[in-house]
Amino acid sequence: MSKPTWQEIAKVAQNHRDDTIRRVEPPIPEIPGPHLLPLDRTDVPKYLLPTEEIVITQTAPEDLVASLASGRYTSTAVTIAFLRRAGLAQALANCITELLPERAIARAKFLDEYLSKHGKPIGPLHGLPISVKEHLGMKGLGLNAGFVSWWDHKREDDALVLKILWSAGCVFYARTTQPQTLMHLETSNNLYGVTVNPFNTQLTSGGSSGGEGALIALRGSCLGLGTDIGGSIRSPSANCGLYGLRPSSYRIPCGGMSATMGGQEQIVPVLGPLSTSLDGVKLFMKTVINGKPWLHEPSLVPIPWRDQESYLKKASGNKLKVGVIWHDGVVKPHPPVLRALQEVVDKLKDMSSVEIVEWKPYKHDEAWTIISNLYFCDGGQEEIEAIEASGEPWRPLSKFILKENPIVKKLTVEEIWRWTMKREGYKTEYAKVWNDTATGTSGAGELEGMVDVILCPVGPGAAPPLDCARYWGYTTQWNLLDYPALVFPVTKVDSTKDVVEQDYRPMNEKDEYNHQLWKSGPEKYKGAPVSLQLVGRRYEDEKVRRVTLSVYRYPVANGVR
Amino acid sequence: MSKPTWQEIAKVAQNHRDDTIRRVEPPIPEIPGPHLLPLDRTDVPKYLLPTEEIVITQTAPEDLVASLASGRYTSTAVTIAFLRRAGLAQALANCITELLPERAIARAKFLDEYLSKHGKPIGPLHGLPISVKEHLGMKGLGLNAGFVSWWDHKREDDALVLKILWSAGCVFYARTTQPQTLMHLETSNNLYGVTVNPFNTQLTSGGSSGGEGALIALRGSCLGLGTDIGGSIRSPSANCGLYGLRPSSYRIPCGGMSATMGGQEQIVPVLGPLSTSLDGVKLFMKTVINGKPWLHEPSLVPIPWRDQESYLKKASGNKLKVGVIWHDGVVKPHPPVLRALQEVVDKLKDMSSVEIVEWKPYKHDEAWTIISNLYFCDGGQEEIEAIEASGEPWRPLSKFILKENPIVKKLTVEEIWRWTMKREGYKTEYAKVWNDTATGTSGAGELEGMVDVILCPVGPGAAPPLDCARYWGYTTQWNLLDYPALVFPVTKVDSTKDVVEQDYRPMNEKDEYNHQLWKSGPEKYKGAPVSLQLVGRRYEDEKVRRVTLSVYRYPVANGVR
Repeated sequence: MSKPTWQEIAKVAQNHRDDTIRRVEPPIPEIPGPHLLPLDRTDVPKYLLPTEEIVITQTAPEDLVASLASGRYTSTAVTIAFLRRAGLAQALANCITELLPERAIARAKFLDEYLSKHGKPIGPLHGLPISVKEHLGMKGLGLNAGFVSWWDHKREDDALVLKILWSAGCVFYARTTQPQTLMHLETSNNLYGVTVNPFNTQLTSGGSSGGEGALIALRGSCLGLGTDIGGSIRSPSANCGLYGLRPSSYRIPCGGMSATMGGQEQIVPVLGPLSTSLDGVKLFMKTVINGKPWLHEPSLVPIPWRDQESYLKKASGNKLKVGVIWHDGVVKPHPPVLRALQEVVDKLKDMSSVEIVEWKPYKHDEAWTIISNLYFCDGGQEEIEAIEASGEPWRPLSKFILKENPIVKKLTVEEIWRWTMKREGYKTEYAKVWNDTATGTSGAGELEGMVDVILCPVGPGAAPPLDCARYWGYTTQWNLLDYPALVFPVTKVDSTKDVVEQDYRPMNEKDEYNHQLWKSGPEKYKGAPVSLQLVGRRYEDEKVRRVTLSVYRYPVANGVR
Repeated sequence: MSKPTWQEIAKVAQNHRDDTIRRVEPPIPEIPGPHLLPLDRTDVPKYLLPTEEIVITQTAPEDLVASLASGRYTSTAVTIAFLRRAGLAQALANCITELLPERAIARAKFLDEYLSKHGKPIGPLHGLPISVKEHLGMKGLGLNAGFVSWWDHKREDDALVLKILWSAGCVFYARTTQPQTLMHLETSNNLYGVTVNPFNTQLTSGGSSGGEGALIALRGSCLGLGTDIGGSIRSPSANCGLYGLRPSSYRIPCGGMSATMGGQEQIVPVLGPLSTSLDGVKLFMKTVINGKPWLHEPSLVPIPWRDQESYLKKASGNKLKVGVIWHDGVVKPHPPVLRALQEVVDKLKDMSSVEIVEWKPYKHDEAWTIISNLYFCDGGQEEIEAIEASGEPWRPLSKFILKENPIVKKLTVEEIWRWTMKREGYKTEYAKVWNDTATGTSGAGELEGMVDVILCPVGPGAAPPLDCARYWGYTTQWNLLDYPALVFPVTKVDSTKDVVEQDYRPMNEKDEYNHQLWKSGPEKYKGAPVSLQLVGRRYEDEKVRRVTLSVYRYPVANGVR
């Protein structure tokens, strides 16, 4: 038997995916040919599904669990609705690696019986379908991490986070796409091709959790699991008009992920939620943390979910202080991002309890140098081997980050230590910058009047066309500092308002590249969601969620949601 | 000018030390010649100091701060008492690198004036003298980490932990010895020679915080700062009959330490207290954590000091469950250690609220292989360079751990990752072993009836003679797992009770070496304190302190204290 070509493996992968979708009952409706579809496909499912399925799939997760617990919806009905809408989402955005119809329906039936027998839900997520990025291991299922050569990798056990969510009563029904190497802010690989943005299929859905982004944007899921080591939860959340949280490290278990560079701890990945609602983010965080994952994954810290109002109760009449970053000093954001910032800032300025100050970015270029030195301490060797083992071609963004990146090289032990010390030095300096925003100290010597959160772009523009997401600085900044960062939708690109700044003189090559993206045709970005990021200090995950809730609730009426 | 020899540098270091001691006022009493001193020198200061100084220096830190806050003692009087007793301790055990009489007295006077002016203490440590291991940086002072070649290293700023203690009102007055490389469980270097055990000067005081151990045993300090990456707080605490805590990592700041291998994060050092009292341990932990060090050292976790009684309130009538390790499966402890265990276990068995179970050590030999591979990822290169730069001789235990240790070799990036994964794998397995002690689950799915704490030896014997502390496993086990571990004194060696097990057949070379140490002359160990260790799960620092307080308070009457 000769070794299969990468194309043959890809075909097997796609056939497997299509087969799982075909097994959904009732069968998923046919979609009109691609030439008939609009650029913005987010409304398409509404024309193809029955009303109840539309209503179910457009319900926010916190409302859905209430309806499931009360028995208003059965888990079976909800699961079928999401399976079918996820199948449509695959046809519309190419975001699925496989559906799990049999195990999902069996689980849903079990839960329905449980509720009927015991008269109460099995846990806080009773009956809720949750979608999962492919690189989180599921018992007996494949785990390819975007590499063709890893197609036949299997995990013998469920990832810890999945076990906890399962104990809380959820249903797993869909697995989603990710890019080759997992190190793109887009989603394309040689197994499944390109995942597109449902709001404008000429744009990327973001990445690396871009399958989740597209699926949730199409309401084929209301709550999904992504991972983030450089922006991989936040980029798809932003590009697809969703809420997404990159939690602080060591709160949510990462055990059971499949990726290269296991044992690399200088920059750690985190796992977190993408959702149609802000309360979906909380539902995920609270449920997982209440499961005491630190008893099973000892690197985690036993900090409970602290959701006290006290975060917002400021001492001595101090206002909530929001620091705003308009420009990170390296790459200037496109006009729609600046407009979104202005809109939110204007709104906040109207609130008597909020004070807006400017946050001067502290050496964000140096932060990129540090983090990108630490990402691939082995010179990218494991990625290179995983790509080359199958003969699959290098995706342009894999080449960009690994081969065309002058920073990537194999480090010695001493060099790793040196970069690690630089990382800690930078983090300490940034903490000082933050502490220095204090306006005084209380009697007990505590700093008072500090900035509470930072409001900033998620990227230098809305979702770009494929292979153009080449500036990571707006997200990696917070990975390096390990600050929690929550993405929320604000508006959509509007080329009548977002005019090109014709006389702008770019500061450097990266800035020039980004400037040209917009200048060369703002109309490319038609309909793209524009999102922002709220950032807190390390382990203030609860605070960023609560501040987002309090100071900025996305207006459902404006069309992104 | 020719480069000074290492002997010339050592002379300068010793002259500097002696000069600082000579500057203490009133002058420190002369000590009778060494040939007149008993092996056990702990009582000697009582014959040489005035009564009030004896009373002050034998007061526990928690009582001392109360007396200082009430004005019963002035900080000046307390500082002078400790300066003088520390000066005696140097003559008795060789534990000091320098005293700081001028800055300590100036500080004490300032605090006395503050109290008199404001009618209240400046903070929770108002006026309390604290001793500090040399490798914690102090502004303007040397920082040699036990290397002759580092003699002229200086730190421009105080270590963060010192700043916090200072804000809380303490007085720094003494700096203490440490071994060459800091990687011995003893304390000897070529700058100052050997620090001996005040209970029996033919034995080691332990290490690497052995200067603190000897100083506090002689009541030249009641609260001191040490560091621990393999037992360095616990070994001197145990050898010198003190309380000492190795906290979980990332609770107490380490910024400002001087040591080799900066940037090595696979096995991190922790900083913690040694004290004459268990409440001294709490006073330190609570004060530092209340100072919110995480705002300044971002690697720390913002977990407050949680000292609730609830730790001991067990659900549904469950008893406090104590797992006992009699033998780690690698090296059998000497008879006095087994007797100490038996004494404590007998006591606990009498308590109706406590249940004793046996803790079967899970692959402790493998734990040593993992941690010792990760200690010196650069093959010990930095240590070797720091030793050889001055031409100073290798101390036997430096040679033992770096040159005669077959495990030490330079690792590649991939090898570090592999060992890091093994480390995490082992930690996960150990967590499972712990979880598996549960006897059931509560309604909410929580594990119930698990072991609460582990009671175990601190080492395979009491303080050994110089250069014989060659088995680290009883302490490194908890460094690898990052479990908090509290040492407390139990008894003293008694050769009439602690008889040699003549027919014991050692399990391996390490066991043989340790067995011979005792067999070849139990009388060598005369008067040595015997201590035990209480270990909790990661971040259960408060729990180990509280359980120690509740189930075993050292009886002051038995002579160690």
